[in-house]
Amino acid sequence: MDLDNLISDLQQRLPLRRFEHVLRVTETARALAAMHGVPADKAETAALFHDIAKSMSADGLQRLLTDRGTGPELFKFNKELWHAPAGALIAEEEYGITDRDILNAIRFHTTGRAAMSDLEMVVYVADMIEPGREFPGVEELRRHAEGPLSGVMEACIVHSVQHLVSKRVPVHPDSIECYNYFVQ
Amino acid sequence: MDLDNLISDLQQRLPLRRFEHVLRVTETARALAAMHGVPADKAETAALFHDIAKSMSADGLQRLLTDRGTGPELFKFNKELWHAPAGALIAEEEYGITDRDILNAIRFHTTGRAAMSDLEMVVYVADMIEPGREFPGVEELRRHAEGPLSGVMEACIVHSVQHLVSKRVPVHPDSIECYNYFVQ
Repeated sequence: MDLDNLISDLQQRLPLRRFEHVLRVTETARALAAMHGVPADKAETAALFHDIAKSMSADGLQRLLTDRGTGPELFKFNKELWHAPAGALIAEEEYGITDRDILNAIRFHTTGRAAMSDLEMVVYVADMIEPGREFPGVEELRRHAEGPLSGVMEACIVHSVQHLVSKRVPVHPDSIECYNYFVQ
Repeated sequence: MDLDNLISDLQQRLPLRRFEHVLRVTETARALAAMHGVPADKAETAALFHDIAKSMSADGLQRLLTDRGTGPELFKFNKELWHAPAGALIAEEEYGITDRDILNAIRFHTTGRAAMSDLEMVVYVADMIEPGREFPGVEELRRHAEGPLSGVMEACIVHSVQHLVSKRVPVHPDSIECYNYFVQ
């Protein structure tokens, strides 16, 4: 995988602010990977791809996902969730990524899921705490990132689910399974 | 179904405080049923039964449920959830209740679920707002109970899920599906 080409493509596909976010997530993912013994190239690849479908229209996302067998359940949830599995499809089909762990790290970077791999946690956490993120509680999550990977992942999913329900937003089953996995 | 006999049995099976709670839930359920066109006898029967398994030991509950085909998933969740399906089994097997709606109202009175029947909502809500309940927000739920049944049910499940995640307690899939059903 030629990452320079991918970076050029991302610059075309994404608005500047989103592109810069992707670069910051990639840097953060590399740092977390180094801390936790995750291969840096896998973390970098997954992080670069994670938002590749973020600028697609709702219609385009729904068509792509439905074509590839996604059931109707997902579309009852916020459109914010659709770009993650779509990004995994694009990485696989347009860029020939075959590493299942990388594809899953892209696919589950928004919802999380139960029993995530280290690479999946690295990308999920990096997306949430990259230095451009500003939300109440992000500093505490960054402090958690100095400890074990599962500890910061737990803090991130608990924060996410608490935020969603405080706003009465639907919670995807994968997210509640991820939350239950950690708090159980 | 001879409800007087059931009430005597409940008095034997339950500590006084729990028994009195059951009577208050039954009164509240009758009032909600009358407001919303739900048959009073069904509401009364389901409400009387709802906590019939509440004093069973964790071992006893797990044995009963496992014997009747409940999978291991439930037992990863708080023991507080186990008495509801166990109560439905007792109502069916020991008391000969066959009305599926009554059995479901007992079974789902703690978790809720998506697409609840009116009777299910009546029992869930009555359990949460009966006059002996004292928790922050219960007065607002009681005010909701003056409006549509689905409105107070939504307020109750949102309150429950918010309370659970604020305490980092696992949330049963039926509860999150109930929550998603209303907020979606």
